[in-house]
Amino acid sequence: MANTILIALGGNAIKQADEKGTTEEQFKNCRETTGHIANIIQYLAPEDRLIITHGNGPQVGNLMVQQKAAQNIVPAHPMDVVGAMTQGQIGYMLQQTLMNHLNEKNIKKPVCVLLNQVLVDSNDPEFIGENASKPVGNFLTKEEVQELKIKHPEYIVKKVKPNDERCWRRVVPSPDPIANLDGEVINKLVDAGVVVITSGGGGIPVLENGKGQLKGIEAVIDKDLAGERLAKIVGANIMFVLTDVEKAKINYGKADEQDLGKISYDVAKKYYDEGQFLAGSMGPKVKACLRFLENGGEKAIISSLDKVVEAYRGETGTIIAK
Amino acid sequence: MANTILIALGGNAIKQADEKGTTEEQFKNCRETTGHIANIIQYLAPEDRLIITHGNGPQVGNLMVQQKAAQNIVPAHPMDVVGAMTQGQIGYMLQQTLMNHLNEKNIKKPVCVLLNQVLVDSNDPEFIGENASKPVGNFLTKEEVQELKIKHPEYIVKKVKPNDERCWRRVVPSPDPIANLDGEVINKLVDAGVVVITSGGGGIPVLENGKGQLKGIEAVIDKDLAGERLAKIVGANIMFVLTDVEKAKINYGKADEQDLGKISYDVAKKYYDEGQFLAGSMGPKVKACLRFLENGGEKAIISSLDKVVEAYRGETGTIIAK
Repeated sequence: MANTILIALGGNAIKQADEKGTTEEQFKNCRETTGHIANIIQYLAPEDRLIITHGNGPQVGNLMVQQKAAQNIVPAHPMDVVGAMTQGQIGYMLQQTLMNHLNEKNIKKPVCVLLNQVLVDSNDPEFIGENASKPVGNFLTKEEVQELKIKHPEYIVKKVKPNDERCWRRVVPSPDPIANLDGEVINKLVDAGVVVITSGGGGIPVLENGKGQLKGIEAVIDKDLAGERLAKIVGANIMFVLTDVEKAKINYGKADEQDLGKISYDVAKKYYDEGQFLAGSMGPKVKACLRFLENGGEKAIISSLDKVVEAYRGETGTIIAK
Repeated sequence: MANTILIALGGNAIKQADEKGTTEEQFKNCRETTGHIANIIQYLAPEDRLIITHGNGPQVGNLMVQQKAAQNIVPAHPMDVVGAMTQGQIGYMLQQTLMNHLNEKNIKKPVCVLLNQVLVDSNDPEFIGENASKPVGNFLTKEEVQELKIKHPEYIVKKVKPNDERCWRRVVPSPDPIANLDGEVINKLVDAGVVVITSGGGGIPVLENGKGQLKGIEAVIDKDLAGERLAKIVGANIMFVLTDVEKAKINYGKADEQDLGKISYDVAKKYYDEGQFLAGSMGPKVKACLRFLENGGEKAIISSLDKVVEAYRGETGTIIAK
């Protein structure tokens, strides 16, 4: 039977942490990333279906800095619009480099980038009071926080690291994704054999007002959790969460630290409930994998980009199955 | 027989010339624009197919200002990447507002935004010497030109208006679009009854190196000419070029100025060859209409957004047919 595979790319697939994010650097990273994706496409059966999603954190950060620098001349846009802009930016770089690899390998497979809105719930706990949890933008000094609060009294600012001159950051809600609003179109494309790049940065977060009217909201959806929603829509049986480590670990940083190989859903759930995986890092990745299996998926794989083919063959990675 | 209709939206559909371009303003304009589009969708037969393209000039201008303001902190991107970003931005605003209108009218029709690369030719005259003709960015003083030329010796700067302190602007090539590189996917979507928003800003301009490898280039493709390429791909029989006037004119600004109503291809071609239509304004619109008819189109209509239904019924607009 044909496999339907969703690949969720981590931030390092597009911009390395130590880079400034020049166009050349980002294209170089994308070229490397899509090289691995082309390898897995080559390895797949012709009837297998593939869908790709990706993060956008560093690109959003850079665009927000640019918007702020020009704020007295050009109006800045809120995070839903910024999200849409980075979907365009990253989607283009991934599409072009993947098309080039496929062409080089003489593989005839169309690749497209679809803009994507994702529904969130206005009653999500992340929208209530000061619950918002996703840090965005630069680290700030106390003075910068005061300045920001005058201009944007609605912003929530939190101390996100121990005492330091710059230990505050703006935080925005990171609500749970409810539904992918472009599902019908995505399905048509995947069914037609197109490699679809979509739901970038977790999708553009929108609310629905109860009367079918959509509106963007200042929030950031976790891209792996949004990836799980996307996997559900296309009926994916295999989900890859690719990051910068080959395997997830338990007892991280301790003497008895241990790599996780093939494990059952129940074992993974137990470790997750014990708090073995860091919030904002491996935590949401494992959460997305668990949800994927709860919602009908067969196999969720956490591994690094360069090991994607080996992990697909079952030779490495943390492989969680029912 | 079913009609396939391409609508090319002018810049005023998204940002009015006297606006700063706040998110609210742009959403308001998009809401008005897609209100007219929803009206025409309501008027069409269920089997008719619709595809939408749009300009991005003001959004590119704003983003370039933001990039420049932060250039010492965050690297600026070239025009292909900026084009991709604005396809995301504008596509999102048009999609969301159109979805809302259709929902209000209880019309079940999926709408999607597809990122789009368009092939241009490295031998296009616009890439040769100082031929580049499309002004981008702010008007500059002599001192600003000198400063710019130190940072970017490769930039071409031209005097674009009579003597004035700020009469120079950067110009970039505006090459002819050769082929729409996402045609296969666009066709699948249009065939499936999806309203596709694509080729924004004339598409992301890319070159092909003779070995199937694509690469973006600093250029701007005319959105109406790229719209014609798109119309060809989906086999559109009707093409709308919407702008801020109800009809094209001849003898513009003279005593014998005259609105054009229904005219033949031959008459339109004669006026075009006489230079009746301004370069950079009505000229490329009429050129796109003529090409559309030369390449198998039935009817090309130049009119204003608010008259789109009347023009479709043949009651107004400049309607050019073979």
